[in-house]
This record gives sequence, C-alpha cells and structure tokens, in this order.
Amino acid sequence: MSRLAGIDVGGTKCLGVVIDDEGHLLQQTRLPTPYGGDALVATLAELAGQLEPYDSLGIGIPGLVTNEGILRAAPNIGGIADTPVGPRLRERLGHSVEVDNDGTCAAVAEWKLGAARGAKDIIMVTLGTGIGGGIIAGNRLQRGANGFAGEIGHMLVDPNGPDCPCGRRGCWERFASGSALGWLARRAASEGRLAGVVPPDGDIHEIRPETLTQAAREGNSSAVAVLDEFAKWVAVGLVNLTNILDPAMFVLGGGLAELGSLLHGPASRWFRELLYQPHLRPHPQLVIAELGERAGAYGAAILPTVHT
Amino acid sequence: MSRLAGIDVGGTKCLGVVIDDEGHLLQQTRLPTPYGGDALVATLAELAGQLEPYDSLGIGIPGLVTNEGILRAAPNIGGIADTPVGPRLRERLGHSVEVDNDGTCAAVAEWKLGAARGAKDIIMVTLGTGIGGGIIAGNRLQRGANGFAGEIGHMLVDPNGPDCPCGRRGCWERFASGSALGWLARRAASEGRLAGVVPPDGDIHEIRPETLTQAAREGNSSAVAVLDEFAKWVAVGLVNLTNILDPAMFVLGGGLAELGSLLHGPASRWFRELLYQPHLRPHPQLVIAELGERAGAYGAAILPTVHT
Repeated sequence: MSRLAGIDVGGTKCLGVVIDDEGHLLQQTRLPTPYGGDALVATLAELAGQLEPYDSLGIGIPGLVTNEGILRAAPNIGGIADTPVGPRLRERLGHSVEVDNDGTCAAVAEWKLGAARGAKDIIMVTLGTGIGGGIIAGNRLQRGANGFAGEIGHMLVDPNGPDCPCGRRGCWERFASGSALGWLARRAASEGRLAGVVPPDGDIHEIRPETLTQAAREGNSSAVAVLDEFAKWVAVGLVNLTNILDPAMFVLGGGLAELGSLLHGPASRWFRELLYQPHLRPHPQLVIAELGERAGAYGAAILPTVHT
Repeated sequence: MSRLAGIDVGGTKCLGVVIDDEGHLLQQTRLPTPYGGDALVATLAELAGQLEPYDSLGIGIPGLVTNEGILRAAPNIGGIADTPVGPRLRERLGHSVEVDNDGTCAAVAEWKLGAARGAKDIIMVTLGTGIGGGIIAGNRLQRGANGFAGEIGHMLVDPNGPDCPCGRRGCWERFASGSALGWLARRAASEGRLAGVVPPDGDIHEIRPETLTQAAREGNSSAVAVLDEFAKWVAVGLVNLTNILDPAMFVLGGGLAELGSLLHGPASRWFRELLYQPHLRPHPQLVIAELGERAGAYGAAILPTVHT
C-alpha cells in the first residue's frame, strides 16, 4: 500500500495529509500559511518532513500554477509573485513534486475518491468567496497548454457588468460566488426588494449572504426571489461550460454548495431555460462535493498518480 | 496508402472527398443537400458509392450529433429531426461510419493537416453566419459525454442581451458572427454612428457585413469603430475559452476569418484587455484556418483514424 502525501495551501493554513491508494486518511498535520514565496517554500518543506515517509508528494495552491509547478500568482496569499514552488521543492527535497491549482486538485479528488467516482467527463465548480474549478474530460485531467485550464470564475458573462477585483468587468464570480450573493442581496435591499429581511433602520451594507439564505429558508419570498436571481447566474456559467464541454456531471463544492435544494432547484430550472437545445440532450448531473475541506489535500496527494 | 473518404453536409450541398494518409486529395464529388432525414441518408449513401473504393468513411453535419452518430437537430438543414444517420448508414453500407459535428470535423482537419499541425491544445472557431467550434485538448479530440462538446456559439455572454433564434438571449454568436457584424453595423447606423458609410437616403436595413468591412478597409473611421466593437465581442468568447481551457492556439475559420488584420489586430488587443491575468501567461496564437471550404470533408475523412 502506497503512502501518498498531499498539501493544500490555503489563505490562512496549509493542510498536509497522507492517504493510502484507496483514499484512507493515514496522517494529517497543519501549519499557518506564511507571508511570501520563500517562507511558503520553507513551510511546505517543513510539512513534507512531518508527513514522511511517503511515496509521492503533491501540492495544491490557490493561484495560477504552470505545468512546471511555478506559481505565477496567488491573489489570496500575501507576498507571492512568480515563485518556482515546484522546482525549489524538488531541489530541496531531492524528489519529484507535483504542484497544481487547488481547484484542479479538488476536481481530481472528487473524481477519484468523491462524488464523481467512475465518471469520465466532469467539471468541479467551487462556489466560495470566488469561483474555482477543475476539468476532467474524456477521463483525463485537463491542464491546458500552460497549466492554467479551469479558471472558470473569470469567464465573462456580462462584459459591461460590475467591476471585478481582477481588473475586468462582469466575470462569472462577480454574479455567482459567495461575495456575489451578498452583493445581489445588498442591491435588492437598496432597491427596496428585500422586504422583511432587513429591518427599516438596518444598514444595507451589513447584509451578509447568510442573512439572505436564512430568510429564504424561513420562506421569505423576497429572499427567495434574490436566491432565484443568484441561481440564474450560477446556471449561466454551468450552461456555458456545458455548451463548450458537454460534461456528464458538475460537482459543486465550496460554502455555497451547502445551500442544497435552495440552490439546486432554481439552478436546475434556469439551466434548462438557458442551455442550447435543452430538450434534445441529457443534462449533466448536479451533485454536491463529498470530500469537504480535505478535497484539495486529497487531490494533491493523488495528483502524482494521475499523471503517470 | 489508405483511401479515406469524407463527406461534409452543408446547407445547400454535400461535398464528398477521398484523401490519402497525407491529406492529398484523390477524388471529389458533390450532390445537393436534400430535404428531410430519409432523403439525406439516401444522398449520403449515393455519395459514398461515388467515392468507392475507400478504407473508411466519415461524415460531418452541422448540428447536434450524438456519440452514436444520431443527428438530434440540424437547424440549417430542412426537415431534419432525430435522424440516426450513423446507424442507418452502417446498416445500409455494411461497414462502420463515423459521424460528427462539422465544427468538430473542421477542428480535426486543421489539427492534422492544416494550420494547427503539431499543436496539442487548440480550439477551432468558425466565424460564419453563426459560430461553430471544435476542441482538441491534451492532444485528444474532445467530444463530451454525449458528443455535443464545441457548441461554443451558444455560450451566453450577456444573458440580458438580444434574442437568439435558438430561443435564448445574448449567445456569443449574436455578437461575434457574420450576422452579428451586420447587426452591429445596422445598430450603429440607426444611432447615427456610421457617417460616410451609409448615404443619407440609404436604407439602414440593407447594410451588409461587406458594406462595413469595405468601408473599414478604405479607412472610414466610424466603420473601423464598429469593427472594433465587433472585435471586442470576438475576444470575449476567445477569452472565456482561454480561461476555461488554456489552449495554445485558436484556429479561426469561416468567412470572417478572411478579414485578416482588420479583425486580428483589434481582437488581439481586446484579448489582452479581457483575459484573466494577461501579463502572467503566454497568450494563445490566433491563426487563420488553412483548409478553407474543404476542411469539413477532410476532417470527416480523418475522423475514423482519430478515434482508433
């Protein structure tokens, strides 16, 4: 039985795991995510040491990672620009190290060990603060020519839409992420469309996604209407991915996947409305990710086996 | 040397070719595209007879074609709904027949014999009356779970945008196809933004894409401005495909690809503006398709060799 080590770099902590070939957790350890590229490489080497002995090591990082394991950018980790994480760890540890985007790692984990076991054409969609993703097509992990495939959150769904911190306008994650849900709710409130959710003297700027989803769960119709608007935008991106890639399944991860039927029902309805030729084709399944917060580390651990 | 037969079904004619393994044209023949599914199968069988002897036969059709070769819909061919083209031809001819979407066939042709020879990650984009496409990722043809991958023209780039004949709103091909260029030009004229292109007593509804491109070639600045608007919309779709799939190359085909630098220059500039993290990554090459109107038939002929 192999010991597969994986590390998932997050905004605040790095989670290291060792799993066996069947995905059983053998070991787990954490360290805080430090500031800067040099410190990150040192932390990863230290975590790797704590996970020894292992047969292979993979690492997932939220950012643009080249096929050579160079981290070009990581907007949610401080002080990172153009850090050759893979090459430097390979030199330091004296063995091969696979590095890839965390969305790609989560996709691999759900494909091999989670909700999409046995499926050949799946797209992982992580609905969190932003939107990340990973693509399996024709039973193969798709990395793209440079390793940057799966940046689905920045597909443009309204080029004249709201500004995105990435510098462009109308990216999908401006409409369909956790922060987008808060934005849609605040917009609805400012237009007087959230009756019964925000008290008359309430501060609109304080409306959180949770405020809205709680009200929707309690049956507030104006909250349900905003969730429906949100579900439409979720569907827009899923429809585009389906028109382009025709997957058999979407695996929804991230905090918003926990909305369950509150999102699933309206998103499926909008999906049917917006898909090209919806009556002439099977629709992809919408399933919820199974591996939770460990998906990234598990996927990182499996990554070296996927590439052989 | 093999004799590979391919047939490309078009709106008005069916083009049959036989090529050798190196893509040399050995034979060519045509028949008018008939009305209705039964007649289409009969025409394809007749064309196949004219192309004999051959070692394999592939067919490209503009429509939704399942992995089993069933034509689910073909909006540009009269009287077609749910015709099992592949199964019926296999029964009639007594040998295997590969059937796929014409955009997929064109992609295969350019990948194996045309502008993208040697590339591993390419997306073919056919800018014609509508927008078709085909995807090669990781050196493999991507057909999707049901055979419908590559319907890139119906990705939604403005869900509140203009109506599309497909029944939805704001599909990419409403903004970036040949008919879209005419629409953008007529809209500009109706808003008084096409000075010097349309005579004061001219009928705005008569403005064709060619009117605009001719004026732009002659340096008319308002025509150039409309072409720039058009190029932005072309770039929006290319950017989305790049964020999702990270190709090394786009092969542009269809009538609008002939715009050359008139489109290439502004589309490349908009691409840089709209891509996620444009400064941190190589940009895909934008190249013009080489095989012209025979691309579909050539790709159909190669299709059976790609699937082995």
